[in-house]
Amino acid sequence: MDNYRGVVSYNGWTLSGWQRQKNTKETIQEYLESAIEAISGEKVHVIGAGRTDAGVHAFGQVFNFQLAGEWEPRKLIRAINGNIHTNIALLSLEVASPSFNALRDAQEKWYRYRILNRNVRCPFRRGFVYFCPMRLDIEKMITAAGYLQGRYDFTSFCATRSTAQTRIRTLETLNIRRVDDEIQMDFRAKGFLYKMIRNIVGTLVWVGKGRLEPADIQKILDGRDRSLAGPTAPPYGLTLMEVKY
Amino acid sequence: MDNYRGVVSYNGWTLSGWQRQKNTKETIQEYLESAIEAISGEKVHVIGAGRTDAGVHAFGQVFNFQLAGEWEPRKLIRAINGNIHTNIALLSLEVASPSFNALRDAQEKWYRYRILNRNVRCPFRRGFVYFCPMRLDIEKMITAAGYLQGRYDFTSFCATRSTAQTRIRTLETLNIRRVDDEIQMDFRAKGFLYKMIRNIVGTLVWVGKGRLEPADIQKILDGRDRSLAGPTAPPYGLTLMEVKY
Repeated sequence: MDNYRGVVSYNGWTLSGWQRQKNTKETIQEYLESAIEAISGEKVHVIGAGRTDAGVHAFGQVFNFQLAGEWEPRKLIRAINGNIHTNIALLSLEVASPSFNALRDAQEKWYRYRILNRNVRCPFRRGFVYFCPMRLDIEKMITAAGYLQGRYDFTSFCATRSTAQTRIRTLETLNIRRVDDEIQMDFRAKGFLYKMIRNIVGTLVWVGKGRLEPADIQKILDGRDRSLAGPTAPPYGLTLMEVKY
Repeated sequence: MDNYRGVVSYNGWTLSGWQRQKNTKETIQEYLESAIEAISGEKVHVIGAGRTDAGVHAFGQVFNFQLAGEWEPRKLIRAINGNIHTNIALLSLEVASPSFNALRDAQEKWYRYRILNRNVRCPFRRGFVYFCPMRLDIEKMITAAGYLQGRYDFTSFCATRSTAQTRIRTLETLNIRRVDDEIQMDFRAKGFLYKMIRNIVGTLVWVGKGRLEPADIQKILDGRDRSLAGPTAPPYGLTLMEVKY
């Protein structure tokens, strides 16, 4: 058996997320597995680094799968791209060490959240940015983000139906900056809780609007109660940029 | 009557072009007129600077229209954006001089054509770039473009069903450069013939592929025959960037 490691890009706007589900065929995992199975004739199981939600994009999601047959990676790439939804594009594929596991071996994931912060929506970025017409105070948002960098119990920012054993995570960096008419927020961590990034974004938007003060973030963290934090920001502003191993 | 001058951005991917047509309601002109009529209760006629084809985008299309009633431009913008297709966004609106005519007074139009030139398609730029997986020789394309800058009879690059009285146009600049994995081509002229830009792009792609040599462009121009040039490049790679007055 050869173990293949791939990097895939997808526009998640109309897709149902990474993970295979019973009620829909519109998941990236199932599209990949179906394409590889159609080409190889083998039953395959694709393992992804991050289980992105419905509507979330990926610039460089990493995955792996095993095949008994021998395949030239370049030919396999072309065949998969020819057999898959046009919102998904396999960027690279290589034979990895037999022990490589895209989920278990991931050391750091980098996600970017994009907010369009201007008066008018943008027809070219629809489905890629969260449109906030009200001017956000980015300086306050940056101050607020400072309370979240580090190792904490992120219960207040974790979806209540999460089954994670511990709500402690280490948020390595949360970098916020204005890029033209966008506010971009870069999150780096080994792992995130369910909807953690979108819950942090929704809360920081409240800070930007003046509905919360930066210091309130400390109280929200300490409270360990999801109802203290702000709303969940929409999925389509979020992109899994890169996974480090 | 007040004469309003507006700047509008649109994603033309699923729209039927600028100009009002009998067979479809999906034109930018009709969407704008319907929105303004619904708000003002007046029958309006919207005049655009450039009649972009179905599938072509605009970053900054300029138009004008007249209304008898008095409107605060900022309120009118908000009302129009709330009443129009989400692929269309009105960026600005102001009261112009009574004689201003967006079509007649345009001094220069800037169009950009984007080619994605890499092995794999990009799910984020689908509908915004023309995907050419074969590596194009950009140096040859730049040399070829040199033959097209200036005042010429562009019959060979004009759709045969054009009704233009003269096929002579002045292409002020045709600037071609590589930007990461894209080849971007900027066209500037006072006016273009029907499908002229897309026919030039299709022909220059043939040069990039080695199917034509740069010097062949001179022969194609001199021949004044549409059948000598290359195919029409797809509309969705093209964007009207800006109109100068």
